[in-house]
Amino acid sequence: MKSLREEIQAAIAAHTGPLGRFDPAGSTTLMELMRAAETGSLPGPELARRIDHTLLKADARHDEFEKLATEARTHSFASVCVNSGRLPEVVSRLAGSPVLPIAVVGFPLGAMETEAKVAETRRALDLGAKEIDMVLAIGVLKDGAYEGVEKDVEAVVAAAKTRKIPVKVILETCLLTREEKIAACVIAKRAGAAFVKTSTGFAAAGATVEDIRLMRTVVGPDMGVKASGGIRTRADALKMIAEGADRIGASASVAIATAGISAESGGY
Amino acid sequence: MKSLREEIQAAIAAHTGPLGRFDPAGSTTLMELMRAAETGSLPGPELARRIDHTLLKADARHDEFEKLATEARTHSFASVCVNSGRLPEVVSRLAGSPVLPIAVVGFPLGAMETEAKVAETRRALDLGAKEIDMVLAIGVLKDGAYEGVEKDVEAVVAAAKTRKIPVKVILETCLLTREEKIAACVIAKRAGAAFVKTSTGFAAAGATVEDIRLMRTVVGPDMGVKASGGIRTRADALKMIAEGADRIGASASVAIATAGISAESGGY
Repeated sequence: MKSLREEIQAAIAAHTGPLGRFDPAGSTTLMELMRAAETGSLPGPELARRIDHTLLKADARHDEFEKLATEARTHSFASVCVNSGRLPEVVSRLAGSPVLPIAVVGFPLGAMETEAKVAETRRALDLGAKEIDMVLAIGVLKDGAYEGVEKDVEAVVAAAKTRKIPVKVILETCLLTREEKIAACVIAKRAGAAFVKTSTGFAAAGATVEDIRLMRTVVGPDMGVKASGGIRTRADALKMIAEGADRIGASASVAIATAGISAESGGY
Repeated sequence: MKSLREEIQAAIAAHTGPLGRFDPAGSTTLMELMRAAETGSLPGPELARRIDHTLLKADARHDEFEKLATEARTHSFASVCVNSGRLPEVVSRLAGSPVLPIAVVGFPLGAMETEAKVAETRRALDLGAKEIDMVLAIGVLKDGAYEGVEKDVEAVVAAAKTRKIPVKVILETCLLTREEKIAACVIAKRAGAAFVKTSTGFAAAGATVEDIRLMRTVVGPDMGVKASGGIRTRADALKMIAEGADRIGASASVAIATAGISAESGGY
């Protein structure tokens, strides 16, 4: 097996020029998903079940979280995604539904010390979180200390794995160079994360189609890729999926899921 | 003893109109500090030892933290203030100096669940943090669930108290109404925090003189008040201190501490 550093260097060398759209030949599911998004024919419920309905603002109130959970049930979104302090209310509101509660960890800076991220993860699992969206140690990645970044992800993944809970790794792409994005994808995959995710929504910019294309190309067809940050319309969401995203993080999820329903198409 | 709610209501009722400058009659130290700041006669070293030299950006690198710690030693700042993941390197760089390492907790959203904040606090103390700057449960305050906000602060204070470590409570004033700011000050004081602090530096606005005046008036002369967010010059810092702040959080600390040294005054 290659060392982490060798694997990163090989991935960087393999993806230097402009990228074409990812070819999902290895995965029928992903191929069909990307094609349906590209042609605009993705059925509403198929889109809805790929949306993490998200509310992470510091000043959001209890009734906004109740509304979030209710909307997620109504529209059959994949999940609701909240800070750990709001888990109890969304977990109870989602009880008996297939909608998953997600907690963010080390959010949004990713600069929390590893053991503290692990403790937040354990606490979130105790409170009922069924997925964990952690933020990468961005500054450590910029130091080039890849092993430190990998250990940070591995520790959170290990804590979640005891309960078979998948972990997404948020890269905060707008802060990273292309090489750093590639390194982050390699690290997340090696460390056993289930998804790479573009953005927190708290930095200068969110998901771009170029980043989704790059991330999907580096991680291949079998890992999850979540586009988040600035996705406000069905068209935005479909563009991301057409490039290989298979999960969308959004606050405007209801608008995304219901776009065009009463207009041309006549509904789902 | 009044209930928390009664105490908050009384404090809101007592501070309805426009506020005059706080009268620090009960504290000679604070009176002299405020007067020296107002007249511009605060000696450089006196200002420097009230500055928390701060670097909290997600993408800051190792060498920036080394520089931060070196500058803090050179200028005899009170402390350096970092995310918990960067404690090891600043703690080792500050060894043997009186400059304190500070870690932020639940930063910058304050929406992390209480037990996770406690775990992050304990981890920061294990790593050598000598003060803790925690973010208030802002959304819970907006719910009017004052007891929940108090419990959150109390839990972190209790964890820190075992090692006699003071806790600052960051209000994120730009997100709060006047009534919420008053409630937050009452809660922080009752819960045993050492300081109230205005801002994280990650929200829409930072410290204002009006907020410092209000916070100092509500907590009285014997608690700490830290002005942070957007303080870039010596004049900014002195304005805050003239209104009752006794600690300044800044990234531009060197510029603040050295302003005018080679010009008119000829030095400290």
